[in-house]
Amino acid sequence: MAAKRLEMNPDRLFDPDPAVRGLARELYEPNKDRPLVCPHTHVDPNLFSEPNASFGNPSEMIVTPDHYLTRMLYSHGIPLEDLGVPRTDCGKVERDPRKIWQTFADNYQLFAGTPTGYWLNHAFSEVFGVDVKLDGETATEIYDHIEGKLKSPEFSPRALYDRFGIEVLCTTDPAASDLGSHDAIRKYSGWHGNIRPTFRPDKVVNNVGTPEWRTSIMELGRASGIEIADYGSFVRALEQRRQYFRQMGATATDHAVLTPCTDEMHPGYLESIFKKALGVRVDDVSNDTRRFSAHMLMEMARMSCDDGLVMQLHPGSYRNHNPAVSERHGPDRGFDIPVQVDFTQGLKPLLDKYGNSKALTLVLFTLDEDTYSRELAPLTAYPAVKLGPPWWFHDSPNGIARYLERVAETAGFYNLAGFNDDTRAFPSIPGRHDVWRRCCANYLAQRVATGVMDMEDAGKAMEYLSYGAAKETYRL
Amino acid sequence: MAAKRLEMNPDRLFDPDPAVRGLARELYEPNKDRPLVCPHTHVDPNLFSEPNASFGNPSEMIVTPDHYLTRMLYSHGIPLEDLGVPRTDCGKVERDPRKIWQTFADNYQLFAGTPTGYWLNHAFSEVFGVDVKLDGETATEIYDHIEGKLKSPEFSPRALYDRFGIEVLCTTDPAASDLGSHDAIRKYSGWHGNIRPTFRPDKVVNNVGTPEWRTSIMELGRASGIEIADYGSFVRALEQRRQYFRQMGATATDHAVLTPCTDEMHPGYLESIFKKALGVRVDDVSNDTRRFSAHMLMEMARMSCDDGLVMQLHPGSYRNHNPAVSERHGPDRGFDIPVQVDFTQGLKPLLDKYGNSKALTLVLFTLDEDTYSRELAPLTAYPAVKLGPPWWFHDSPNGIARYLERVAETAGFYNLAGFNDDTRAFPSIPGRHDVWRRCCANYLAQRVATGVMDMEDAGKAMEYLSYGAAKETYRL
Amino acid sequence: MAAKRLEMNPDRLFDPDPAVRGLARELYEPNKDRPLVCPHTHVDPNLFSEPNASFGNPSEMIVTPDHYLTRMLYSHGIPLEDLGVPRTDCGKVERDPRKIWQTFADNYQLFAGTPTGYWLNHAFSEVFGVDVKLDGETATEIYDHIEGKLKSPEFSPRALYDRFGIEVLCTTDPAASDLGSHDAIRKYSGWHGNIRPTFRPDKVVNNVGTPEWRTSIMELGRASGIEIADYGSFVRALEQRRQYFRQMGATATDHAVLTPCTDEMHPGYLESIFKKALGVRVDDVSNDTRRFSAHMLMEMARMSCDDGLVMQLHPGSYRNHNPAVSERHGPDRGFDIPVQVDFTQGLKPLLDKYGNSKALTLVLFTLDEDTYSRELAPLTAYPAVKLGPPWWFHDSPNGIARYLERVAETAGFYNLAGFNDDTRAFPSIPGRHDVWRRCCANYLAQRVATGVMDMEDAGKAMEYLSYGAAKETYRL
Repeated sequence: MAAKRLEMNPDRLFDPDPAVRGLARELYEPNKDRPLVCPHTHVDPNLFSEPNASFGNPSEMIVTPDHYLTRMLYSHGIPLEDLGVPRTDCGKVERDPRKIWQTFADNYQLFAGTPTGYWLNHAFSEVFGVDVKLDGETATEIYDHIEGKLKSPEFSPRALYDRFGIEVLCTTDPAASDLGSHDAIRKYSGWHGNIRPTFRPDKVVNNVGTPEWRTSIMELGRASGIEIADYGSFVRALEQRRQYFRQMGATATDHAVLTPCTDEMHPGYLESIFKKALGVRVDDVSNDTRRFSAHMLMEMARMSCDDGLVMQLHPGSYRNHNPAVSERHGPDRGFDIPVQVDFTQGLKPLLDKYGNSKALTLVLFTLDEDTYSRELAPLTAYPAVKLGPPWWFHDSPNGIARYLERVAETAGFYNLAGFNDDTRAFPSIPGRHDVWRRCCANYLAQRVATGVMDMEDAGKAMEYLSYGAAKETYRL
Repeated sequence: MAAKRLEMNPDRLFDPDPAVRGLARELYEPNKDRPLVCPHTHVDPNLFSEPNASFGNPSEMIVTPDHYLTRMLYSHGIPLEDLGVPRTDCGKVERDPRKIWQTFADNYQLFAGTPTGYWLNHAFSEVFGVDVKLDGETATEIYDHIEGKLKSPEFSPRALYDRFGIEVLCTTDPAASDLGSHDAIRKYSGWHGNIRPTFRPDKVVNNVGTPEWRTSIMELGRASGIEIADYGSFVRALEQRRQYFRQMGATATDHAVLTPCTDEMHPGYLESIFKKALGVRVDDVSNDTRRFSAHMLMEMARMSCDDGLVMQLHPGSYRNHNPAVSERHGPDRGFDIPVQVDFTQGLKPLLDKYGNSKALTLVLFTLDEDTYSRELAPLTAYPAVKLGPPWWFHDSPNGIARYLERVAETAGFYNLAGFNDDTRAFPSIPGRHDVWRRCCANYLAQRVATGVMDMEDAGKAMEYLSYGAAKETYRL
Repeated sequence: MAAKRLEMNPDRLFDPDPAVRGLARELYEPNKDRPLVCPHTHVDPNLFSEPNASFGNPSEMIVTPDHYLTRMLYSHGIPLEDLGVPRTDCGKVERDPRKIWQTFADNYQLFAGTPTGYWLNHAFSEVFGVDVKLDGETATEIYDHIEGKLKSPEFSPRALYDRFGIEVLCTTDPAASDLGSHDAIRKYSGWHGNIRPTFRPDKVVNNVGTPEWRTSIMELGRASGIEIADYGSFVRALEQRRQYFRQMGATATDHAVLTPCTDEMHPGYLESIFKKALGVRVDDVSNDTRRFSAHMLMEMARMSCDDGLVMQLHPGSYRNHNPAVSERHGPDRGFDIPVQVDFTQGLKPLLDKYGNSKALTLVLFTLDEDTYSRELAPLTAYPAVKLGPPWWFHDSPNGIARYLERVAETAGFYNLAGFNDDTRAFPSIPGRHDVWRRCCANYLAQRVATGVMDMEDAGKAMEYLSYGAAKETYRL
């Protein structure tokens, strides 16, 4: 049986109506090759600190680390071990990349119609030049083809960075990180790439009083050179680290919380909680730990007003919902499940204090799409608030359409933060930006075709959403 | 005035764009006549246990029992009595089916643009061969026409079962049912139809401690032949009934709860609640009854792992919201109103314990469409979880479009459970399946037209959604 | 640089597909010029009580009072002072209308693709005959043009009332208002316009026990001529005012609450709360004030059953979310942010008691679009319940499309209350009604094109939604 051809439709994601499609093309064309601004990724900076770094083999690059992909295979009963996902107990997992690839290919049908399938096809076709569809029969041929490419210097991380047209790429880094790779890139590499860290203090501001928190506090103390003995020294250590991140090029922080609650605790009570937490587990986890996290969001907003780091908030994900999987394979395996969030009441204390300040830029993300039109778009009336692009499960053709359709009427286009690819899957970056640009062009084309906007305004909005919005919002 | 013609557009529910419409037709055509798999209905099995059973007159068949229809008429001030809906106090209601039909016809305009109107037109046209629109003037003519048909052997339940191309049809039956009709169909009828029961234990697991619960427990004890004196004997009785249902062909259970909370109670406390409830009303209804229901969902999942019955969960409906109507006319009169649900946190205990098991298939339904993309599609990463089709108010052209648009990107097509018609209105069954198939074809055609999938993958998904998914999910 | 032409596409808001567009046109055409029924506005009745009233200059008419517009400019860092918005401390604000207009025009780009931008363009083009796009360069020319128009008698409020084809317009008035302007219009003006008040008692039923509440109670006592010494006299005063509003032409009441909770308090407890509140702040604001508001909704429904005033409920808006702005500039400045609401459980006590009564018409509005399909459409099964049109942020092309798409299948078209423009921006009224009519025509055209309805039924529904629904629902 002959392999099926893999082809990307040049008009993909545009409305099939010929009039709208024509307008969408017209809007997309001048923006499709703009440089990529990547203000929020989970790419490993080590890929860029050494000139001869490599992505490894096709399975190491594409299958094993991508939880979007492994979660789907797992849902159909394929053990994560068969996909090479390491076990926390160092138990046996599949090590043969060709076997992993074959398992993946045999089940590739599962990704039909999903954004993962779309991005994979985009990477196969546009990045690697594969021209047949992946399935059980073409698995080996495609593996060989990609493996060959990955061995060539044209497919090193730095080469792809250039080929993808990346202008700047921000990684995500814990507060206690020494940013060694960033330091190496900036000081020693002589390389022109623009790789920047992002300050992510989740481990020291959430779950106060747990043993893991105390470990993170020790690491923070060590990294900052400040002995953390009380809340005041904790705050100084955080300020010191933010300062260091800024020196290493950071322009933003990132905060993951279950609920977007903000609150200011009484200094005395705060100090007593903090000291107790340093010594022993705090008594009332469900209350004091939440209040502490809520308080720290306020503190972070205060610091952002002082040091100018843009504050990103990613709330509403119940992390590691599947304990069997996280105990066996660690965190970030595709089982972070969204919950309802309440921005209107949760963020009120923070916005009361900092929402009218031009010094703060607060970029809000959500997995609860109901909040798009109900809360997030109305909240952009605050000068500090910008809306992040569709996140995670919603970074998809349908998800982007829902986002624009629900936020743009109330927020306008110029309160949006542009696009984040938010990925650890490096070869998917151009495909993800391209989906965003195509979906924006399509939304705008539909507005033009229905007389809501004219092409002049649509063209300006298109340019902004494709490129300017991310640069401006993230102060890049 | 000449009566208006009733015609079904052969391209109905397909995108008007000619390119998409063509693709939709191509996907629909080979699937439109596939056998109907009906894993979840409220059809009365008595219709099939006797060869000479009849649907009665047109009003008895179409108007009086269908709460989708009576709720709309009632909303415009028409008393349920005028539609022949019996009163709990045996008070007078309209008995003349022609008067009921005339009231219905005079108000038929109210159903314009609703799925009920669509299904009715489909049944009139495709099942009964009516070719004029129903209104006050055509009421008698159409009544006479349908009445004539219903008297012919070609319109007996068994004949329509065959004509509709039903492959299997599952009814919904209380835990204490003797399944007499099912027994009759299987043992004595000599009829080839495949009618199966579904185990629905709501009455014995919800509202613990109420007089109605105690009555249901007595019935359960009688049916199982097990004296229910404590929690242990209660569980044995349930296991016995499940075993009996399986012998009668059941492959699934069904559970209706207000909230999808799951929880495991301490055995000692559980036993004390249970014993108290057997004797007197439990003290704290709002707490212990909920916890008991939550516990029983866990127990049911455990039993499903043991006996292989697929577990269906229908949460989030506030049943009998209108007490005036339910006191006067009993339950299921169109006043079950949805509430918000939280699957992510509610189901966590159950999924922690059974979600990774291949022995369990848990089919989740929702009336809270916000959970489609926020919770349900992400939860399909659990091997046990499948998503049921749009339920109740959402089993409609717009509702199916919203469902596919929001779940298919994250869940893929192969974590969906196919279609359920979920109806007591037998003549609407082919129309409902046809809506689903058309809407699936249309969604897939739009993906193909926008370059998200190719026709090969769309064709496979279409076949699965039309037929294979329900068979596979329900182990039929 | 030549100014860009401003043109309104005659087919705007219609689906670009030629077949659907043709049907939409056919449905729209006979309804586009129907009289405007405006049962819920925030227009100032003073505009109509004097024959020589004027809208003032273009900035006074269009920019300063419209919080839809000022909130967007404020979000981009433009102080409300620069837009002429008065300060509560009488501090300095921009007084030069041409400077205000220039600031507005320089930032007009921000409104691209928003309903505000659409309505402004509609008013510029259709009401004022402006034919160039507003921007920094055309600002003065357009200001001069509009200023000239506003000085002519053809642009007086009464003249525009006629030119817009308004049949009836209801204002919103506090319970203690003497309705002086309404009295003047009815008794002395000799003018044919139909301006009616709406009874809005928010200040006397919410926030019980605050100093503001006590002030409002005193005003209510004075207006009604009833000394309010206890709950009984409070109720009599309200009844008296409702009677007076009815004499002045009112057919409806309006109620804004944070949550749509309803509840009946024990008379003794109610009396004790009320008496305490008259004297001092009630102790437990978060509980008793909420219960009092919930109780008063029940009382208002009871009064509506007695006096026939249609009851409008606007829940779910967190009013004046930004205290810095409301302290500086007063309420209604664009910072009322929606929250989640629960109609199903909240309204149950009210619906239990009055939901089946034909004497009550309860029009429900929401800012929480999730409730459209989940709660509101199902609740229309109650004879008393009608659904208000999309409110506030959702009164927009996308918002109306979402509304119809989610409610019409379950509620049908004849349980909808038609359109409300709900505006204080008088020149936007024809544009807003036109958007509604176009979006309804488009929704119906799509149903016809996909075989869900025929043109006869669509035409009837279109006429109802355009005109009859509001008249009938509001008993006008």
